[in-house]
Amino acid sequence: MENFNYTQIEEAYNNIKNTVIKTPFVSSDYINKLLGSKVFFKLENLQITGSFKFRGASNKIAKLSNVQKNQGVVAYSSGNHAQAVAYASFRNNINSKIIMPNNAPKIKINNTKKYKAHVILYDPLTENRETIGEEIARNENRTIIRPYDDFDIIAGQGTAGIEIAEELSSLSINPDIYLCCCGGGGLIAGTSTYLKYKFPKIKCYSVEPEKFDDTKISLESGTIKKNIYKHNSICDALLAPQPGKLTFPINTNNLTGGLAVSDNEVKSIIPFLAEHLKTIVEPGGAVAATALLTNKVDIKNKNIVVMISGGNIDLDFFTIL
Amino acid sequence: MENFNYTQIEEAYNNIKNTVIKTPFVSSDYINKLLGSKVFFKLENLQITGSFKFRGASNKIAKLSNVQKNQGVVAYSSGNHAQAVAYASFRNNINSKIIMPNNAPKIKINNTKKYKAHVILYDPLTENRETIGEEIARNENRTIIRPYDDFDIIAGQGTAGIEIAEELSSLSINPDIYLCCCGGGGLIAGTSTYLKYKFPKIKCYSVEPEKFDDTKISLESGTIKKNIYKHNSICDALLAPQPGKLTFPINTNNLTGGLAVSDNEVKSIIPFLAEHLKTIVEPGGAVAATALLTNKVDIKNKNIVVMISGGNIDLDFFTIL
Repeated sequence: MENFNYTQIEEAYNNIKNTVIKTPFVSSDYINKLLGSKVFFKLENLQITGSFKFRGASNKIAKLSNVQKNQGVVAYSSGNHAQAVAYASFRNNINSKIIMPNNAPKIKINNTKKYKAHVILYDPLTENRETIGEEIARNENRTIIRPYDDFDIIAGQGTAGIEIAEELSSLSINPDIYLCCCGGGGLIAGTSTYLKYKFPKIKCYSVEPEKFDDTKISLESGTIKKNIYKHNSICDALLAPQPGKLTFPINTNNLTGGLAVSDNEVKSIIPFLAEHLKTIVEPGGAVAATALLTNKVDIKNKNIVVMISGGNIDLDFFTIL
Repeated sequence: MENFNYTQIEEAYNNIKNTVIKTPFVSSDYINKLLGSKVFFKLENLQITGSFKFRGASNKIAKLSNVQKNQGVVAYSSGNHAQAVAYASFRNNINSKIIMPNNAPKIKINNTKKYKAHVILYDPLTENRETIGEEIARNENRTIIRPYDDFDIIAGQGTAGIEIAEELSSLSINPDIYLCCCGGGGLIAGTSTYLKYKFPKIKCYSVEPEKFDDTKISLESGTIKKNIYKHNSICDALLAPQPGKLTFPINTNNLTGGLAVSDNEVKSIIPFLAEHLKTIVEPGGAVAATALLTNKVDIKNKNIVVMISGGNIDLDFFTIL
């Protein structure tokens, strides 16, 4: 924590602000009236590669040496970090190998291949992605682009917080609450650092899928805890087994608490967001909005910022009748 | 035309800029690479009430006298103008009656009722909505809020053009082409007036559904022509029978030409926009993007602005499997 503060996020933004999209920050009259509060949604599902992950990957890759760039990179990811690393590499003519679970959404595997990455599928029930990644890195001198436990990645994700703060300031809005999804915790660690710096009174909450609420139980116990049971969730982007070694101390410092939502709640909110925000959100990207809309925290008469973190959902079912 | 220019649009923006949402202006790396051009989408589907129509209705209502406000308003509309007038009235404590076809999308009828309008359904095959509206206006001393043939409405819709011009200027982009849907022609008349004022060399094209391309054939013949056949189209928002008396002279002056797209083309583009722009677009709101993506005009190496005008599509089919 003493190693990480808002200055790294501002440096990261200098590295990537001409690379990433400044994503929309939108409000819905209907939702505001429904909840009796003022809600702003940060649409990182409209980020390049369809999630915030492109910010961190772009920052990490911008900081590689030329030797490292020539030797290539390797990453493991359920899909959004995979696409982000693949595309950031492709743009910089860097060879990339990406290790993905064989049950990842088709859209994520296909996009990662489209960005010219060499995709290696593994069985998440029997194999360990970190082990595979580290072996490849060692054997081929590749740099590992970690999904969250790297200050350059956390700072990159945190740049979304700079844009949120700028939008709030231009509207003269003081935010009361920030709700953000949490897998390994990189996005919320980075963005909450910046938002707490600009708005010290803001209360930040992580939101996780039920049974994958390792950050929530770790925050409650004050020490890193693993998810106990082997379950599954439609929130494929948020299935990290435990908080990160770097992200958890930051989140312990910044967060007021942790929230959890069920898959069924998320399933009901995705069509709601399609109807009222006109936007396509993947399950993991919808958990913060789900916590908002299912009363997981008191929001009456408050100014709330909600992170919509990704939109890479298989759309086979989306047909016009 | 001599009666209408950019100054009325700037006045309208002064009236409504604190009422309407400054909607996002987004670009997709994937689409830009696919087309070999730089495309910017103006997301008016994220406007209040789900379409650009809220701009014109808000401007018209802002200009009513107190006596007119007390006597109430009446409007006829297939749905997006209906919702816009209903909600702009509701916000200003004005009583509204809205005449809608009985086959309008459920979402549009339901939202109009939700905004406390008194909805009167008519049969579009046997009844004339203008006649019904004028009779109500006469009998009840209500002001008619016309869908497009009113300079205050055209100026209101044109305010989207101010925001587009500001975004383009901040990016130092000179636009080559502007593609915009066209029903009665209010949106394209207003926005093209402002864009031609700021970027005199821009080529503006109207986009209509096939068989409802009355503006295209009217532009080609130089005089107002009606759609000849009785057809149907999924683009419920764009079924005006002929160009407006006020909008057509403006569009004749501003437009380079008219384009038409088929329902099947539109059906293929809506899921494409959901996947790549992560946004929900109704059929009528997707025709300009459809013209872009089905090569209706030469776009190679050009800077293109595409209007996404509305998102009020029935989402019964949108379920998470």
